[in-house]
Amino acid sequence: MNKLSKRGQQLFLVLALNLICASFLTCQTLIADEKGITFQEIASDIFGEKIGDDKSGDVYKWGLTARYTGPKEVFPGEGKFKDLFNFLPAIKWFDPAHYYKPKVVVEGEFEGMECVLCHTVQTPGIVKDWKRSRHSQPGKTASMEKEEVVTCNKCHGNDHANLKMPDTNVCGGCHPEKLAQHKSGGPGSHAQAFHLDIVENAWQLDKPAAEMHSCASCHGIAENRCDGCHTRHRFSPAEARRSETCGVCHMGADHYDYETWSNSYHGKIYKSEGDQWNWDLRLKDWGRMEKDGQLPAPRTPTCAFCHMPKGNHNVHYAITVDSRKGKDLVNRGAEKFEAKRKNWIKTCRTCHSPRFAKDQLAAMDEQVNVSFAKVREAFKIVIDLQKEGLLDPMPEGLAPDWLGHKTFSLLPNGKERFYNVSKIEKMALEMMAYHSTAVYKSAAHFSMNDISYNLGAFPMDSTLVEIKSEASKLRRLATLEKKAGINHVPYDFWSQGEYTDLLKGKERKEGDVGPKSECLHEGAQCLDEN
Amino acid sequence: MNKLSKRGQQLFLVLALNLICASFLTCQTLIADEKGITFQEIASDIFGEKIGDDKSGDVYKWGLTARYTGPKEVFPGEGKFKDLFNFLPAIKWFDPAHYYKPKVVVEGEFEGMECVLCHTVQTPGIVKDWKRSRHSQPGKTASMEKEEVVTCNKCHGNDHANLKMPDTNVCGGCHPEKLAQHKSGGPGSHAQAFHLDIVENAWQLDKPAAEMHSCASCHGIAENRCDGCHTRHRFSPAEARRSETCGVCHMGADHYDYETWSNSYHGKIYKSEGDQWNWDLRLKDWGRMEKDGQLPAPRTPTCAFCHMPKGNHNVHYAITVDSRKGKDLVNRGAEKFEAKRKNWIKTCRTCHSPRFAKDQLAAMDEQVNVSFAKVREAFKIVIDLQKEGLLDPMPEGLAPDWLGHKTFSLLPNGKERFYNVSKIEKMALEMMAYHSTAVYKSAAHFSMNDISYNLGAFPMDSTLVEIKSEASKLRRLATLEKKAGINHVPYDFWSQGEYTDLLKGKERKEGDVGPKSECLHEGAQCLDEN
Amino acid sequence: MNKLSKRGQQLFLVLALNLICASFLTCQTLIADEKGITFQEIASDIFGEKIGDDKSGDVYKWGLTARYTGPKEVFPGEGKFKDLFNFLPAIKWFDPAHYYKPKVVVEGEFEGMECVLCHTVQTPGIVKDWKRSRHSQPGKTASMEKEEVVTCNKCHGNDHANLKMPDTNVCGGCHPEKLAQHKSGGPGSHAQAFHLDIVENAWQLDKPAAEMHSCASCHGIAENRCDGCHTRHRFSPAEARRSETCGVCHMGADHYDYETWSNSYHGKIYKSEGDQWNWDLRLKDWGRMEKDGQLPAPRTPTCAFCHMPKGNHNVHYAITVDSRKGKDLVNRGAEKFEAKRKNWIKTCRTCHSPRFAKDQLAAMDEQVNVSFAKVREAFKIVIDLQKEGLLDPMPEGLAPDWLGHKTFSLLPNGKERFYNVSKIEKMALEMMAYHSTAVYKSAAHFSMNDISYNLGAFPMDSTLVEIKSEASKLRRLATLEKKAGINHVPYDFWSQGEYTDLLKGKERKEGDVGPKSECLHEGAQCLDEN
Repeated sequence: MNKLSKRGQQLFLVLALNLICASFLTCQTLIADEKGITFQEIASDIFGEKIGDDKSGDVYKWGLTARYTGPKEVFPGEGKFKDLFNFLPAIKWFDPAHYYKPKVVVEGEFEGMECVLCHTVQTPGIVKDWKRSRHSQPGKTASMEKEEVVTCNKCHGNDHANLKMPDTNVCGGCHPEKLAQHKSGGPGSHAQAFHLDIVENAWQLDKPAAEMHSCASCHGIAENRCDGCHTRHRFSPAEARRSETCGVCHMGADHYDYETWSNSYHGKIYKSEGDQWNWDLRLKDWGRMEKDGQLPAPRTPTCAFCHMPKGNHNVHYAITVDSRKGKDLVNRGAEKFEAKRKNWIKTCRTCHSPRFAKDQLAAMDEQVNVSFAKVREAFKIVIDLQKEGLLDPMPEGLAPDWLGHKTFSLLPNGKERFYNVSKIEKMALEMMAYHSTAVYKSAAHFSMNDISYNLGAFPMDSTLVEIKSEASKLRRLATLEKKAGINHVPYDFWSQGEYTDLLKGKERKEGDVGPKSECLHEGAQCLDEN
Repeated sequence: MNKLSKRGQQLFLVLALNLICASFLTCQTLIADEKGITFQEIASDIFGEKIGDDKSGDVYKWGLTARYTGPKEVFPGEGKFKDLFNFLPAIKWFDPAHYYKPKVVVEGEFEGMECVLCHTVQTPGIVKDWKRSRHSQPGKTASMEKEEVVTCNKCHGNDHANLKMPDTNVCGGCHPEKLAQHKSGGPGSHAQAFHLDIVENAWQLDKPAAEMHSCASCHGIAENRCDGCHTRHRFSPAEARRSETCGVCHMGADHYDYETWSNSYHGKIYKSEGDQWNWDLRLKDWGRMEKDGQLPAPRTPTCAFCHMPKGNHNVHYAITVDSRKGKDLVNRGAEKFEAKRKNWIKTCRTCHSPRFAKDQLAAMDEQVNVSFAKVREAFKIVIDLQKEGLLDPMPEGLAPDWLGHKTFSLLPNGKERFYNVSKIEKMALEMMAYHSTAVYKSAAHFSMNDISYNLGAFPMDSTLVEIKSEASKLRRLATLEKKAGINHVPYDFWSQGEYTDLLKGKERKEGDVGPKSECLHEGAQCLDEN
Repeated sequence: MNKLSKRGQQLFLVLALNLICASFLTCQTLIADEKGITFQEIASDIFGEKIGDDKSGDVYKWGLTARYTGPKEVFPGEGKFKDLFNFLPAIKWFDPAHYYKPKVVVEGEFEGMECVLCHTVQTPGIVKDWKRSRHSQPGKTASMEKEEVVTCNKCHGNDHANLKMPDTNVCGGCHPEKLAQHKSGGPGSHAQAFHLDIVENAWQLDKPAAEMHSCASCHGIAENRCDGCHTRHRFSPAEARRSETCGVCHMGADHYDYETWSNSYHGKIYKSEGDQWNWDLRLKDWGRMEKDGQLPAPRTPTCAFCHMPKGNHNVHYAITVDSRKGKDLVNRGAEKFEAKRKNWIKTCRTCHSPRFAKDQLAAMDEQVNVSFAKVREAFKIVIDLQKEGLLDPMPEGLAPDWLGHKTFSLLPNGKERFYNVSKIEKMALEMMAYHSTAVYKSAAHFSMNDISYNLGAFPMDSTLVEIKSEASKLRRLATLEKKAGINHVPYDFWSQGEYTDLLKGKERKEGDVGPKSECLHEGAQCLDEN
């Protein structure tokens, strides 16, 4: 920085202006931008790097001198919001029925071992998988006289220029009962994970396609494909009986399942001796006595044992009471859930006395209730600030969402969002979505440790203290400003900035949105009109 | 929110009052409460949900319109504080000697295979476990001529209407040496984990029963039961030799054991090849040469190998120097701990040269020392604020603890607590209890990575920066208020609120507690009188 | 604290002075220090503990009354900065060529089974390892007619008083091709991990020897030793093919590799069935069809399969594009990296179609780009504050680094550092080093979950909100102070304190450093002169 380039000297002028501006601190921080000088230009001068587009292949120190140029191809959304969002091309693998189009690579019609012959060289791993699968090794079952070999063309078709990408319906052709069970799941279940959660509820409206892609991947595979649990091309029931299978999606702060099971006695015993158990045993037989010399049945429950008793593919059927993964409060021990609670206790009875199970579940009920007492205390503090206009910023100071609205995320006309909100709102939402959830999941999965540690009650305490501390600072600053006659206006960075601008959506026009926001997208209903 | 109900209009009036209040910002935020309108009522109107008790079975969006109704049954505490706290009913399983009462389900006297016969249907898992256990497969040992089959009634009694729930003393009947070793542990060991830590030291005074239940579970099982490590009804020594067993309890921010061992070379090698090792081998034989064809002994230490050499069940015997799990500073290499350091190095010598081991342990000593240099710098900053009355809030602004005291948690008359404190106190406590502990445990368990990452030195640096930043803000605000003639009084939310009120304890009467707090519980000693 | 000792009464006077001082709040908080009373003295009185050195063996409550006395022996650094930093003695094991000196324990010359005989008692574990290794079980290979037994003395020498500690060069004597591949790695690879990263780039300048030791351990073992991956004395290729081996070092917030692989489908499948795969199979044969009856090849990639195809020991050779572990932005799909992208896709083709692989990698490119849009937005906010002099503190208020400089860590004359910076700088750096890295690693390793959760895009959103909130507070405070005529000067605790003083380095003299910092270390170049 010792020797400033010519451009640097010009920039210096801008910095000087900024410093003058700084002596009247209420003015905003975007003079450089007003002069048409971007942050990339300033960073370029400082770091001696040329500005470039993010597709160049150049290395940008901290990415500072790059310009975001967006995906070159996207797919339109589905459903009533289809014009308001889009998907990355990779969505074709997670919702093949809507997005997959075959690509001509090799022409010709092939079947059976012809496919195998070539793919033994092209993609040997899946051929090896298939050879170890029951699809290639026909047996006999009670329901079928004699099984046929399921060759590649059974699922993908014979025409290589027109290959099909199979989804649950294709698998359901031979496994109709499993498909029917899968499809019978209600809201919150696998069966509704994509077209209800992602498409109709329009989660993907809130963020650029690239950011929602990871959400869409898990949600898509859960609803639309069977190989999310029975990975291709082995399609093994044994694999799906183990908890790792579920854990690919069911982990992370607001689906805190795999972690809590892993840390429980059940999970720890599984980790130390699970490789010696008989995973080929059907779930319904785990509780039966083995004959001498047989491998032991699994000694602890895995996800499937409790949530898919006897292999029922409606994962909500047995014990799950919908509470949006623990974000809402519901008493699972209430009379109306008696059947589910009984199912639960019956499952525990494989190894535990009903009295033991009931006591543990009653403890869970209390632990969950107390966690929501913290949530309510926190929400009251934040809603009080909003009522008095003391959030920093108030919703009006934020960027609008893709629908053009500027909403308070804790009231019904807003959406839960953990970005493009004030800090104290975000903390309250995290408390509910991460910590209450963690307390519930830990208790339900009997991880004594996680109830307190990791994301549980202790960090929840910590968040409550931080919410109070933030509320106190916001009030003290406002009191001081009042006395000093300062009218605090939210800084521009809350509503502008490279990423924040992406959130506004590519089709929003200048002036679309005012403090009294309206839904201005013609032909598309806004969320609060639903 | 567009159309407000009548009730909503009334509420609106309250909101308006709040806004007027907001123009005199030093006034508090609880007008709604003063008018007798609860947060639940406000939320009910906003969300269009009826208010209900948390036992109803209704789904409460974010739990906002629920009312906490508490556990319907609790058990009294034990010891001198017995009137001041209580346990959830599930405590009976973790301290059966005090709380377990048999429940008549089936009457009659049974023994041996009679029990097994029925329980093969009722709770097949534990029968299968038992059948694979040595309890059902008698052998011969050096100390016993011939073993007897240990049937159900040996531990639970014959009278089904009066079943016993066995604790360590029952197991000790046949395993007296192990029990004696277990009981010989001092403070901080398994032997003192429940009746000293939980009951006498009154940890559970601080919080509602539901919150301390998870603490009591691990602490109870560690002291009172053998099947915390040798899980029922297999009761396997092989299981307890593996680290997962210990990991059920020994994980989380202030018992950071399992994580750090897992991430070390020892843990990683265990994970990749541990399933091929001979877990039936006694700990004392792990260092011996195997004969040809035998399974290899474990190639890396597990928890038990270092902390229970030769199977000694006093887990503190060999190498553990008590430092409250790393929260206090102690030099484990000092002369007075020579025997323990030698034990440690001797253990390492199974595979490493003493010189290598000594160097690693000396590095640990330094790493721990430096972490406490950060703690001291942080504590000085916080204690300076307290001396000058600048904490927000000062202890007087907080809710009292269950003993009626309002204490500064960093001074001897307070208790370490991570809730119901000011933010900066909390951060200092976390630094000491989470980060110093993590640096120590990582170094002692040779997780090179955790010493810096996860909870180690790097987040500790981060916390130090945040403590300084918070101290600076508190001082700047106070300076401004001084100049403006504003006398900042802590906001009411620090001492009131749904969860905070639970912390005050159900028996505390209005007016019990003033700024100069006194212990007002007749018949019970207060903590600082001990 | 009820009864103050005499010393306590004196201290009370100091506290009183502090309180008077507090009424003029702009004055600093170090009066106690000015009076020559240390924090340890105050804490000693409060806690009734005597002050002592950290080597005493006494237990210091929270470490408060300890005094840091530093390591009694350190080794000088290497290279041009050798006078400015030092290493703990344990460095000898991680860079034996420079630091290991034999220590005479036993004299005499030994070879072959003589060593084994004695070490079967002294360190049995490594003898058992060796006995299971190929070093003790000679075979035949294509390149060698007949292998020789590799006995202890081949690597350590015969002279027990002068034992050698082998490094990569010793192993390279018999494995020259592997050594050559290892050494051919460029910056960022194993081959440059210690002497470039640690020694020449002088990372270890920033912190006390004890803090950098954990960094030096992993970096040293990666460059200088082969038993970081093939652990001694088994030296197994099978071990190194599994991901746990790499995971010892490749984990933690800014090397987020093992975690993201573990959480992917690949990692989860590995965890559930990996113990049944043939780890003795060479990497180049994993894609080949097995004969009947053979154990299956690994069904999912491990670290080595993608990053060391066909066993090439240059870990950067195949697909890694250097972006400082994801801290810098680079488009891995750009034309100039075509060969690497093709390699990558070719690797995926073992099981996946190229079209599938390309779509996933294109999604990764977008996900990474969006994460840097957040970084740029955050950096702009922080750099704006720095330009306007509003950081708290500005670099001048911080302690100097070991070179005597007071620098802004986000500009080229500073160094990335996560300590001894203002809070908002730290948050921006964490966003780039932890969260951008996590988004990239998660996407590259196909952990759909981690892209959003854990350290991914969601906590990155959270950090952006917190940066804006902090920027707003700094601006509001400055505006208020301006209006009130207060000239805010950074508090002393930013530049002083027990740990902060350690950062200044032991050789810096009083007065070395002023606001316009200069490099005052004679005989050593400063960083910005390079």
